[in-house]
Amino acid sequence: MQLRSSPPSPFGRKVKIAAHYLGLIDRIAVVFADTADPKDSLRGQNPLGKIPVLILDEGTIVYDSRVILEYLDELAGGGRILPRGPARLDVLTRQALADGIMDAAILQVYEVRMRDEGQRSAKWLDHQAGKVTRALAAFEARTGTFDPVLDAGSIALACALGYLDLRFAGAWRQEHPRLAAWLTAFDAGVPAFGLTQAQ
Amino acid sequence: MQLRSSPPSPFGRKVKIAAHYLGLIDRIAVVFADTADPKDSLRGQNPLGKIPVLILDEGTIVYDSRVILEYLDELAGGGRILPRGPARLDVLTRQALADGIMDAAILQVYEVRMRDEGQRSAKWLDHQAGKVTRALAAFEARTGTFDPVLDAGSIALACALGYLDLRFAGAWRQEHPRLAAWLTAFDAGVPAFGLTQAQ
Repeated sequence: MQLRSSPPSPFGRKVKIAAHYLGLIDRIAVVFADTADPKDSLRGQNPLGKIPVLILDEGTIVYDSRVILEYLDELAGGGRILPRGPARLDVLTRQALADGIMDAAILQVYEVRMRDEGQRSAKWLDHQAGKVTRALAAFEARTGTFDPVLDAGSIALACALGYLDLRFAGAWRQEHPRLAAWLTAFDAGVPAFGLTQAQ
Repeated sequence: MQLRSSPPSPFGRKVKIAAHYLGLIDRIAVVFADTADPKDSLRGQNPLGKIPVLILDEGTIVYDSRVILEYLDELAGGGRILPRGPARLDVLTRQALADGIMDAAILQVYEVRMRDEGQRSAKWLDHQAGKVTRALAAFEARTGTFDPVLDAGSIALACALGYLDLRFAGAWRQEHPRLAAWLTAFDAGVPAFGLTQAQ
């Protein structure tokens, strides 16, 4: 299988960590994709021009990260990072919340990257930052000790926090000590987290 | 159950159509949510401040639309709008593509709604419009006749096209005759589509 992604992508990192955890990483070749380059074959693979995209050996194209995680989980036997039964709903909602942190963080990054200074909106930046702040508070309130049994929700949360470290210099850590401790334990217990860290 | 949504939301419409189709709509009370109002209880229910949110009778809070659709499908017996087995992957990827159209369309709407004129970026608007254009072309190329057996992908596609009708005056129709015919058949075959149309 081929994974189109780029090192800083938090959504791509979800897939890489899941593939490591599920024992599938050796079956995946990561091929760099430049979402800003119209000539990159990415836009032919995913019309949205977003990463990650997984291309199966027989050619089927799968996106986005949530769909890829579900596919990899099934490929690994099922029920491993996406539990079946009643526990599944909470995992999926936590994943949606962590994905929402990434979306709101990326929109803040794009505000600087894709616009001239005069086009930037403090109101828009505040709106996105508010989503991140509230979501972090919700996770801080419910995060316990690190559970070495990963699920799609914990993988997504680690990737969201890693992205805040990468792009916002870890400013979230001071007000979220339980989350910070949780991520330290995640990092220690899940080698794939360190292996997929963007420089 | 309580559904927090607003009439124009294409993601909320996905949930409403799914609930109609699955025979669950009578168990759902739709409660208006104003995503722009910080005092709306929505942000306490979903820290991201996004709709739709489903609040189960015993209090569990479920989001986003994809997670709600999966929950409703299971509640209705499972495998109805999210098939089990090999067909599921294509449904999920089509849903991701249609959701991506909505995301890119909403970002264009917000560009006007949330920014002063001088802060608007033609480059950003083009970037988002390009996603919509390519995704519509991909759907146009593969859309056949309307299949009255709905799935999460076809529900999402109808809602994406309905949102383009609502906010972009149906400009997509001229260059996508097969999709336009498909939506006409969807509208005729799925009463919930007309019932959930925003004015």
